[in-house]
Amino acid sequence: MIEPPFLLYLGRSTDPVGIKTSRGLATFRPRDCVGEFRHDDCPLTLGLPRLSMDDAAARGAKTLVLGIAHAGGAMAPALIEDAHQALAAGLHVASGLHHRLRGVPSLVAFAKARGLRLIDVRDPPPDLQVGTGMPRRGRRLLTVGTDCSVGKMYASLALAAGLRDRGAVADFRATGQTGILIAGGGVPVDAVVADFISGAIEQLTPARTDAGWDVIEGQGSLFHPSFAGVSLGLLHGAQPEALVLCHDPARREMRGLPGRHLPDLEDCLARNLEAARLTSPQVYAAGICLNTAALDEAAACALCVATEDRLALPVTDPHRFGTDPILDFLCTAPSPSATTASR
Amino acid sequence: MIEPPFLLYLGRSTDPVGIKTSRGLATFRPRDCVGEFRHDDCPLTLGLPRLSMDDAAARGAKTLVLGIAHAGGAMAPALIEDAHQALAAGLHVASGLHHRLRGVPSLVAFAKARGLRLIDVRDPPPDLQVGTGMPRRGRRLLTVGTDCSVGKMYASLALAAGLRDRGAVADFRATGQTGILIAGGGVPVDAVVADFISGAIEQLTPARTDAGWDVIEGQGSLFHPSFAGVSLGLLHGAQPEALVLCHDPARREMRGLPGRHLPDLEDCLARNLEAARLTSPQVYAAGICLNTAALDEAAACALCVATEDRLALPVTDPHRFGTDPILDFLCTAPSPSATTASR
Repeated sequence: MIEPPFLLYLGRSTDPVGIKTSRGLATFRPRDCVGEFRHDDCPLTLGLPRLSMDDAAARGAKTLVLGIAHAGGAMAPALIEDAHQALAAGLHVASGLHHRLRGVPSLVAFAKARGLRLIDVRDPPPDLQVGTGMPRRGRRLLTVGTDCSVGKMYASLALAAGLRDRGAVADFRATGQTGILIAGGGVPVDAVVADFISGAIEQLTPARTDAGWDVIEGQGSLFHPSFAGVSLGLLHGAQPEALVLCHDPARREMRGLPGRHLPDLEDCLARNLEAARLTSPQVYAAGICLNTAALDEAAACALCVATEDRLALPVTDPHRFGTDPILDFLCTAPSPSATTASR
Repeated sequence: MIEPPFLLYLGRSTDPVGIKTSRGLATFRPRDCVGEFRHDDCPLTLGLPRLSMDDAAARGAKTLVLGIAHAGGAMAPALIEDAHQALAAGLHVASGLHHRLRGVPSLVAFAKARGLRLIDVRDPPPDLQVGTGMPRRGRRLLTVGTDCSVGKMYASLALAAGLRDRGAVADFRATGQTGILIAGGGVPVDAVVADFISGAIEQLTPARTDAGWDVIEGQGSLFHPSFAGVSLGLLHGAQPEALVLCHDPARREMRGLPGRHLPDLEDCLARNLEAARLTSPQVYAAGICLNTAALDEAAACALCVATEDRLALPVTDPHRFGTDPILDFLCTAPSPSATTASR
């Protein structure tokens, strides 16, 4: 889909959360990343070699990945200029922003003249159908969140890998640009036409009869006033057997919304379960994933234990402590076909 | 925006709900509608003269309005053929379907050659922003529903007109193709990119300080698994002071979803209020609009009374009994600026 090796773009980003696509590739496809591109005023780094476009091309990079994100995803002039530089150095350019590279005529002409590709990861599939909510077979787990950018993708990837480690069949189903770049496929659900949100997810996770899992990457939050519609359609389309709630305990305000508090974990979980029952009446909570990066080890462990006591659910930081508590819970949960009348 | 007079298209439709756009124009802009176009196998009529494309043009029609709708809005070959016939007769063609007239090359070429317009009503505004949920001034009422196509647009138009009749300033804010055709403007919210649902509604209904009302047309239902994401984003973007719940008591199944029951009125209202509080903490229910077309007068009246007793809210059929019960309630409700600590 997108030719590696990659040069990862940080540009002038100053927000660590804003470079999560570049960081995701550095984390999950490290061998495909030759370096990072950042301007002098960018205080962030992924720990990769800082390279110019030309240096990256000389080291074998094939594609500059504009792995930055901000609400709405506008295409700033400075970003366009940097994309020009990448093309001049002989790199393809891939972007996950809402505004499309192919919507910038000067880039389109320049790429064409040089025989290079502009790849808009956020282009949704062309022939989506509206969702139906009809019951379909298969085991599906969806990560949901108290906010945007709290670790849903990481948790989903870790849970899918953990299930596979235990001998289960499990596929990560990407719904955002970072996940799609990591997995090589998926549906950019926040970029589909609104009528097709749930249908896009039904199409991404069709019925399966191999007893395997689809681990679906959630987006946004039912409590985020910018994006809750996406989260709800995703929840209905996913028709999940199990929910895992993701949360960043260091987050003081909803992302991009100064002054707006995050929801309470219990309220958030209850609201997600209530909404999910519309298409998955037997849905259950399988655990909580906390992003404890801001805490020391002892505090992180204590928070997980306290949260587990409070919510009576497995709680872990998948990055720090792995996913075993949730996997143990899932492996004792009978598959829905055996429990249609209970739970 | 779209040049009247109109020829209203019924085509081969057999579902009375599916022609609601054509019916909406016939009802709310009767002087602009010269006739209806339907094939021999169409059992429906709007009571307008049945005209061929050429006859309509001879009677002064300027635009064929493809006023039919179905889930997803595909552009069938037979529809394209009829659009060709309209262009051949010298009519512009307007459509509210998801699939665009301008996406059909043969139509584009033919219209251009004849100097006629193809108008896609469902094209969203080009520069939408993501919603913020920030408090904004103004009085806003949103109609919500137990299902799609239960009378939200009719109720909204009637409530806006009723408020004006009582001397208030009130504007109908259209969010669907029919409403947009009637009002001459609005945002086709189900056609915007998913990330921008709430932002589109914030843009449609900016802060106002004239003490006037925005009466916002709702879409879908929080309980409709195909479209609930749209409904939730609309609810958050509308930041409504007041909700009016619309319901069709004759509806046995959710529209387009055989076997799926409609939600209970109380549950549906409670869930809408709960979700609305995210951006409008003081939101209140202002009444229920029932579409009693399938009932006789006595039964309709009895149902309104019984529902009013059960829910302790004003209940009416706006088409049959007018909107006075709800307007009376609204006119006694203090504006939110006076009640931030209560209700």
